[in-house]
Amino acid sequence: MVQALTTDEASVTNQYVSFQPTPRTLMGPGPSDVHPRVSAAMGRPTIGHLDPEFQQLMDEIKSLLRYAFKTENKLTLPLSAPGSAAMESAFANLLQPGDKAVVCVNGVFGGRMAENVRRMGGELVLVESPWGSPVDVAAVAKTLAEHGDAKILAFVHSETSTGARSDAQALCKLAQEHNCLTIVDAVTSLGGIELDVDGWGADVVYSGTQKCLSCPPGISLITFSDKAAEAVKARTVPVQSWFLDLSLLMAYWDGDGGRTYHHTAPVNAMYGLHEALLMLHEEGLEASWQRHADMHQKLASGLTNLGFEFVVEPEYRLPQLNLVRLPAGLDDAKARASMLANFNLEVGAGLGEFAGKVWRIGLMGQAACDSNIALCLAAIQSVK
Amino acid sequence: MVQALTTDEASVTNQYVSFQPTPRTLMGPGPSDVHPRVSAAMGRPTIGHLDPEFQQLMDEIKSLLRYAFKTENKLTLPLSAPGSAAMESAFANLLQPGDKAVVCVNGVFGGRMAENVRRMGGELVLVESPWGSPVDVAAVAKTLAEHGDAKILAFVHSETSTGARSDAQALCKLAQEHNCLTIVDAVTSLGGIELDVDGWGADVVYSGTQKCLSCPPGISLITFSDKAAEAVKARTVPVQSWFLDLSLLMAYWDGDGGRTYHHTAPVNAMYGLHEALLMLHEEGLEASWQRHADMHQKLASGLTNLGFEFVVEPEYRLPQLNLVRLPAGLDDAKARASMLANFNLEVGAGLGEFAGKVWRIGLMGQAACDSNIALCLAAIQSVK
Repeated sequence: MVQALTTDEASVTNQYVSFQPTPRTLMGPGPSDVHPRVSAAMGRPTIGHLDPEFQQLMDEIKSLLRYAFKTENKLTLPLSAPGSAAMESAFANLLQPGDKAVVCVNGVFGGRMAENVRRMGGELVLVESPWGSPVDVAAVAKTLAEHGDAKILAFVHSETSTGARSDAQALCKLAQEHNCLTIVDAVTSLGGIELDVDGWGADVVYSGTQKCLSCPPGISLITFSDKAAEAVKARTVPVQSWFLDLSLLMAYWDGDGGRTYHHTAPVNAMYGLHEALLMLHEEGLEASWQRHADMHQKLASGLTNLGFEFVVEPEYRLPQLNLVRLPAGLDDAKARASMLANFNLEVGAGLGEFAGKVWRIGLMGQAACDSNIALCLAAIQSVK
Repeated sequence: MVQALTTDEASVTNQYVSFQPTPRTLMGPGPSDVHPRVSAAMGRPTIGHLDPEFQQLMDEIKSLLRYAFKTENKLTLPLSAPGSAAMESAFANLLQPGDKAVVCVNGVFGGRMAENVRRMGGELVLVESPWGSPVDVAAVAKTLAEHGDAKILAFVHSETSTGARSDAQALCKLAQEHNCLTIVDAVTSLGGIELDVDGWGADVVYSGTQKCLSCPPGISLITFSDKAAEAVKARTVPVQSWFLDLSLLMAYWDGDGGRTYHHTAPVNAMYGLHEALLMLHEEGLEASWQRHADMHQKLASGLTNLGFEFVVEPEYRLPQLNLVRLPAGLDDAKARASMLANFNLEVGAGLGEFAGKVWRIGLMGQAACDSNIALCLAAIQSVK
């Protein structure tokens, strides 16, 4: 944004100019690099959100989402707001005031789940695990045994704040044994590591577009099992949020007997999502997971050679989000600013208790490639 | 989407193709035609939502939004979700359970406001006016006099379901006299007709991007007066929605002392919004209002010649949304389908009690131009 003025200058001179962002390579926790095919799709002409062609697109998106989530769930759809709204939608639709929810916290996003339960008047039971570790499955088993009346078990599959993967399969199995519905945050998972909604018997699973799908941020993706849908139907208290009320949303997204207007869908964002899902379908889910795993190995080897240590144990590391401890003497903010200025490379800072101590290096979607790894290692070399 | 398959066929053959929408001329109730400058802006490279260049963009957007809303309100920002989420944000932040809200209903969107109050546990007082008429100011005065404990007066400035403009200035004045905070739906107003937030003393005003700003749908715009901001601070019950909680949003959007991560902003949508606001600033607010008024006169004259009657009285007609009764013998769905197929022209159907009886013809933003009017009149001529 070479020609842009500061706000104060702009107010004085009344001069605004078009925004020309400097192209970056995005290797933080998201947004990740957007593929040119996705950008091109989003630039196509806007049509009406009730246009027959748009309705056809909606059907294809639902079908492709079922492929990506590995589910046959009828209620599988995009939401017109970011991942945090998808999280809120999961709780808002499943939880009624007074319902007991066991929430696993091992990073920022588990904490946000707990905050959702508090605000919605749920009875919150926390299972806390150290940052950088997966959710402690044994502790969850013990908690569920103690709280037989819990309705919901909620956890983050891929903790974007720590780079740790939790054992979603084991946690979903526990929830089923205790007759709980699961809410699974898979914002950073989808397309990057195995996610098997039906195979694991997960109930409500949501994700985002700006991680391993290589879309711009702005919308999110969610799927509800039949059991979860039944629970929504059985509510006695209406969902407080009109915007996130699943029953209203489905009247628009469901094809049966025509579409009912709910809100105006973000038309062009849906073009981008469709293209990104198409690309994932072309590559194949398993191939995409393997590519993320392979690229992670290459990056990890390079980072280790440069003196960085991984915080997460190998078994639980997310290939798409590498949390590494800074070597002694490396100034966090200064080094990131230098890499941004000289290499147009963005890596992510630490959050919460990791602030200033770690970097979060993303290898998400199209950004999980050899050229990005080479750039990243060269840039880090330059600031060491 | 010539090559696309139905979902069933696609599932069988495993064939998906990129979505190629047929370019349309959008003269419905929104989304409206997107200007090529806005499309081009949205196609620029995605950068991080905490990138220094993005933070600069955020400052410029806030400054340009203040220009568009005619306000000095510090709390003026875009929201990462459509207009209906902005409506929900207004109520969610101002209303506490038990608070009394007077809601004016003269169409679909006033009804949605009432639904927000019900879901949030507010005490709802309705002032109903006929569809196609403005909100009855005298009835509001009477109701406010009877309900001295009302905290909120909410109304729709431009009813997108009926094409009627209400007297926002008079209603805001009444609210001030009765010590009420106003919530004003200006989704279809901004850029199309006079909107003077500070001049009228409106408290919470929200709008959308897909109407007279000529952006794609997906995000919304909101401003809070100092008095409204004080009311949010004075809350004793937390906002139930984490996603829409103004106090959290401002920690990200407010520059003072750095930005706190809340959610990942829809980066590319913000590029588009910035460009659209820039174009409004270049044309000038008053010039944009005048253009909408002039184009409305031309369209209205043509429609009258073709036998269409306006439902709304001249004084309260929205120039940007023309609600006309279909002449006898004109088949609503068939005629719209024909204009879409043969002219790639979209006009809007009637909603609610107007369904099947009227069309809503938009002249919004860049679509308010001579060529669109000529196309529209020619297309209508062809189906009569």
